[in-house]
Amino acid sequence: MPADHDASAQTSLDMIIARKETSIDVVNVRQFIYNGREEWRRKEKIVEIVSKDPVFDKSKREWMTRTEKYTRGLRMTNRIHELEQLLGWSKQDATIATSLLDDPLPISLHVTAFEPVFLLQASQELLDKYAGVIASRGIFGCYLQTELGHGSNVAALETTASYIPQTKEFEIHSPTLTSNKWWIGALGKTATHGVVQAQLILPGGVDMGPHLFFVQLRSLDTHELLPGIIAGDIGPKSFHGFAATDNGFARFFHVRIPKEHMLSKFAQVTDDGKYVQPPHAKISYGGMLYIRSGMVTTAGWVTAKAVVIAIRYATVRRQGARGPDGLEKRIITYPSLYIRLLPILARAYVFISLGRALSQSFQIMVQRLSGGDTSLLAEMHATTSGLKILCTTSSVQDVENARRSMGGHGYSAFSGVGRLYADVIPSVTYEGENFVLDQQVVRAALKAFHSLFGTEGKGRPSPSTIRGLTASSYYLRLLSSPSKEPPFLEDGDGSKSSWNDFETLILLLEWRAALLVHEMAQTAHDPDTTLFQRVSRGTTEAFVGRRVGEMINDFRKNSELQESDVAVLSRLYLLYLQTTIESALADFLSFGLLRIRNPFRVRASRDPTRGLRLAIARNCLSLVPEAVGLTDALGFSDWELDSTLGMYDGNVYQALWDKAQTEPLNDKEIPDAYEESIKPMLTRGQQKLTERKWETKL
Amino acid sequence: MPADHDASAQTSLDMIIARKETSIDVVNVRQFIYNGREEWRRKEKIVEIVSKDPVFDKSKREWMTRTEKYTRGLRMTNRIHELEQLLGWSKQDATIATSLLDDPLPISLHVTAFEPVFLLQASQELLDKYAGVIASRGIFGCYLQTELGHGSNVAALETTASYIPQTKEFEIHSPTLTSNKWWIGALGKTATHGVVQAQLILPGGVDMGPHLFFVQLRSLDTHELLPGIIAGDIGPKSFHGFAATDNGFARFFHVRIPKEHMLSKFAQVTDDGKYVQPPHAKISYGGMLYIRSGMVTTAGWVTAKAVVIAIRYATVRRQGARGPDGLEKRIITYPSLYIRLLPILARAYVFISLGRALSQSFQIMVQRLSGGDTSLLAEMHATTSGLKILCTTSSVQDVENARRSMGGHGYSAFSGVGRLYADVIPSVTYEGENFVLDQQVVRAALKAFHSLFGTEGKGRPSPSTIRGLTASSYYLRLLSSPSKEPPFLEDGDGSKSSWNDFETLILLLEWRAALLVHEMAQTAHDPDTTLFQRVSRGTTEAFVGRRVGEMINDFRKNSELQESDVAVLSRLYLLYLQTTIESALADFLSFGLLRIRNPFRVRASRDPTRGLRLAIARNCLSLVPEAVGLTDALGFSDWELDSTLGMYDGNVYQALWDKAQTEPLNDKEIPDAYEESIKPMLTRGQQKLTERKWETKL
Repeated sequence: MPADHDASAQTSLDMIIARKETSIDVVNVRQFIYNGREEWRRKEKIVEIVSKDPVFDKSKREWMTRTEKYTRGLRMTNRIHELEQLLGWSKQDATIATSLLDDPLPISLHVTAFEPVFLLQASQELLDKYAGVIASRGIFGCYLQTELGHGSNVAALETTASYIPQTKEFEIHSPTLTSNKWWIGALGKTATHGVVQAQLILPGGVDMGPHLFFVQLRSLDTHELLPGIIAGDIGPKSFHGFAATDNGFARFFHVRIPKEHMLSKFAQVTDDGKYVQPPHAKISYGGMLYIRSGMVTTAGWVTAKAVVIAIRYATVRRQGARGPDGLEKRIITYPSLYIRLLPILARAYVFISLGRALSQSFQIMVQRLSGGDTSLLAEMHATTSGLKILCTTSSVQDVENARRSMGGHGYSAFSGVGRLYADVIPSVTYEGENFVLDQQVVRAALKAFHSLFGTEGKGRPSPSTIRGLTASSYYLRLLSSPSKEPPFLEDGDGSKSSWNDFETLILLLEWRAALLVHEMAQTAHDPDTTLFQRVSRGTTEAFVGRRVGEMINDFRKNSELQESDVAVLSRLYLLYLQTTIESALADFLSFGLLRIRNPFRVRASRDPTRGLRLAIARNCLSLVPEAVGLTDALGFSDWELDSTLGMYDGNVYQALWDKAQTEPLNDKEIPDAYEESIKPMLTRGQQKLTERKWETKL
Repeated sequence: MPADHDASAQTSLDMIIARKETSIDVVNVRQFIYNGREEWRRKEKIVEIVSKDPVFDKSKREWMTRTEKYTRGLRMTNRIHELEQLLGWSKQDATIATSLLDDPLPISLHVTAFEPVFLLQASQELLDKYAGVIASRGIFGCYLQTELGHGSNVAALETTASYIPQTKEFEIHSPTLTSNKWWIGALGKTATHGVVQAQLILPGGVDMGPHLFFVQLRSLDTHELLPGIIAGDIGPKSFHGFAATDNGFARFFHVRIPKEHMLSKFAQVTDDGKYVQPPHAKISYGGMLYIRSGMVTTAGWVTAKAVVIAIRYATVRRQGARGPDGLEKRIITYPSLYIRLLPILARAYVFISLGRALSQSFQIMVQRLSGGDTSLLAEMHATTSGLKILCTTSSVQDVENARRSMGGHGYSAFSGVGRLYADVIPSVTYEGENFVLDQQVVRAALKAFHSLFGTEGKGRPSPSTIRGLTASSYYLRLLSSPSKEPPFLEDGDGSKSSWNDFETLILLLEWRAALLVHEMAQTAHDPDTTLFQRVSRGTTEAFVGRRVGEMINDFRKNSELQESDVAVLSRLYLLYLQTTIESALADFLSFGLLRIRNPFRVRASRDPTRGLRLAIARNCLSLVPEAVGLTDALGFSDWELDSTLGMYDGNVYQALWDKAQTEPLNDKEIPDAYEESIKPMLTRGQQKLTERKWETKL
């Protein structure tokens, strides 16, 4: 290394060089990922405004107490509301501004849970009265489902809503400690109203199961809790996540609400206390599906943030062996690193694309539902459950792996990635715990299997049945003919074109799903319990695989992209498929979709997974020069990332140094602990030294 | 469910019933895991004292600022020091007390890094002068290795120590921003002295590479930094981990130290500036090996804490389908749950046992080293690197999976498991980043392979060479005869005895290691980069597998254990072996150690992994009634766990409720944010409502 080399100055140079290497047109790809120039411009404009407003300053938040974070969160929410009025922002502009804040705020419960549930299930009368004031934030809502003693199993909730025909009221009541509503976002200190999930009890004590009720919680004049309600915050979360959100508890003591406040678009109670059935048993799941489909997009963007930071850091961090320039090599050039980061980048792109498609499907379903057509509900339910599991599980793992890829500095809070993890991690347990949801996905898959092949699983479905398969079970067509065999891939080198052919990879993913479901159906009498997860994941990945194929075809036809953009994006989405297979190799080997050549002479045989692994390594290597371009195309500003390691200009060491100087412990050279503890300990140690013989061996 | 059922009262009943179910003698097993009655009693006594002392109160720490946590940490350290004197505690008693605190404290850097490095490498002269005062804490030390721009590659550190023969001094200097020492625990505000890793520069400018120097940092009178040194805290860590530790930075400006302050037990510089070689190139690794071997034990105990909490919660939490008693089933009875938790319990037990054995080996090595015998160093290096990777990677994953198994409530900070994760997570990147270390393990494995089979890998080793294999490469014996074949396990059901035979499982683990290394050696010209990790993990797991076999044999001979204890422990350690294989099934399938029966007719074949998976499920099921006993045997007090969900009495809902009431946000019914933000927003919303038409659609 040259004696006068300045490793800090080198970082910005390295970033400039890396930006020149990319063959994509960053502007084109950015428009592609933002679904067009208009959306990108809109976001850019909002970032410009918000990032300069001191209310949204992030520089002190690492050291704030929970109460300060909560207070700051509401200050930001109010400011966005103000800006909405001042600048004539649309509802969507305000939503974009809120999503930019990277602090989960109470308002998001109003927007993503309370409001959709209300809009989907309130009667017309209630909508006329409240939909406007909910939209304008004249009231602030939350959604009260889980209880201290009860989570995903809503059937067992203890809160009751008993109908009183005499007064035409419901009485909301929490009979026990465990019936306290618990974990409810925005309930602790903020919300004025809520939708309460409670067991509907008819006169005579008949329990009709859980239903939804619109309940005012706090006075609009004083913000005091209304009589009969106690509520508060449930305390801090792990990793200091969701600190600005007041997840709360509430207990109801015989609280009366008017009959009209039951959300009765589907199920109803007549004035004299008779129950009117909903048209579809699961129609009330609409709100949940809305939240889950939104989670795919969120998972994509949070993964994107983490990997942008990690790739930028890996581009400028030099460590280890020296290259031809006499400097240590940039860590992104190490296979052990790029092979971890580029698949994460691929998943970020794929999940963002997937989330957009899913939201569109959701809108179509809502339109149909409003006309009473429930035909899309089951399919939407099947796909969103599986996708919720897949995308949240992947994103939490990817965010954490991106953080770890940055080694020691990744553990600094200033890296900004730990904060992402703290906030994204509950997504694997909320809105359907992933292991519980697995079973729903499996149930749907088995149902589809048996409806095709009969209860014995040996029937022959008609061609029209096969043609009628929905996207979520399309892979089952492969089992329709006993003579159909999968494309077998044996060991070979990475240049074998089959590992780079996305149609082959999708077909493999579909075969794996089909064979897993086939195995599950055959062993139902004595189930291998890990099979639930494998089936859930396998069937979802087959669905996603097919969608990725469509995405690749789509952007090949996209006239806004240049050939070089398409080439790079195709390799990136191909990497998604390749690594999806790699992460489940045991399945592919178990079902003979990948084979050992000489199964009875182990040492003469070669690792049959080598071909795929080499193909991945080569694909990743080809994407290394594109990495910075692809991360720039995700369009994050430094203010959004709030990361010393993910700085756009690559100047990471200066940023770490500057940030360290703001640590409050550094305000005094001698900490208060010195007089109180350090000095007495040192003094005692010096004295004790003379008093006895000290053990000075390891 | 009975109408008057109290789900909260039920929890304690459930715990009492579960305690009665176990067939082990908790006292016996506890003594086994604590290595005898004496160690357990000692710990119990210290817990008794410390947990009642208000200095060690944990009830407010969730809401403390970093500075408050730091101050509290030193207060606790000083108090332990005081107790040591007051109660006549031994050094080990004080170490136990510190380890009980579950807050990583600056003092641990003194004890586990500074002191061992000093004792292992200081000259006799320096030892005579300082070993006593280090042991008595008359000075407070830290270990300054990594820099802002440099981590694991010590060869590239920028800090220099130039020898000045005229004054017989070294001059310590940090030439650049990136040469700032960074991440150094206890450096920020606490340490008075440090061991500095710096490039030794001889007169004339010859760079001899990194060496260690003993440097005073702060005045023992005023605690001010000495002239020429700037230092401070580097800021908060991800997830608010290590909050009480002042990881710091320091920059040296031509700081002079006496020549005697070079740690010169092995390498030396003569008065006139000549270099004297150390007897063994890697002899200075002793300190690092000490830290790494300690990490195995730590990984075991932290895993243990997390799984105790999760198992206790799963024992009393009821959710989902109703059982014969009309109540929802306890979640520990769900296969998807116990199949996740019991393997974690097994790993906790195995790592604790393994850590103890490793510490003993370390002591033997140190004894030999002190006599100049370096023969054990290479073996110790090979095993500790692999074990450090395996145990830290496992423990962080297990801690997080234990937390997630508790669903929503697991995300509460009061679960106590998030805190464990925040503090254990850096272990995967510090003391050798795991992916970097992988390569050292692989290098050692390939070296052993080639020394047996020659550079071509086709030689025939002599029987004596085979007999001379050390434990870390013992599995290579399997490749010595071309006719030797592994025990093939095909698909079958879980009752097949082979999956319950630990010798077979160990042999499989060894075969996998051997075949992985064989594959690696064959493909060195075009390496599959993921193979590094697989070889590293595979060879380490073969080593651990063999050790687990020894452990099982050992406790079968242990007269303090009853037959029923041995039976349960054997099943638990067997579960470790089974799940180790399961987690790497792709390897076993790739190398033909597990085979599909009809590889060319996929639908006629059955999943060959089913036999193992069923064996695991059945073993887990047999251990469910033992779970609470096995967790009790780990001997944690409620004070140590500090978890509402891991309460010994199972009264989790009352504990969550009580803790929530202590949240400072609940101090006021109306939060300050109301007047400032909520009220303006609501008022504006009510006004705006009349001004324009609101979009009230999803």
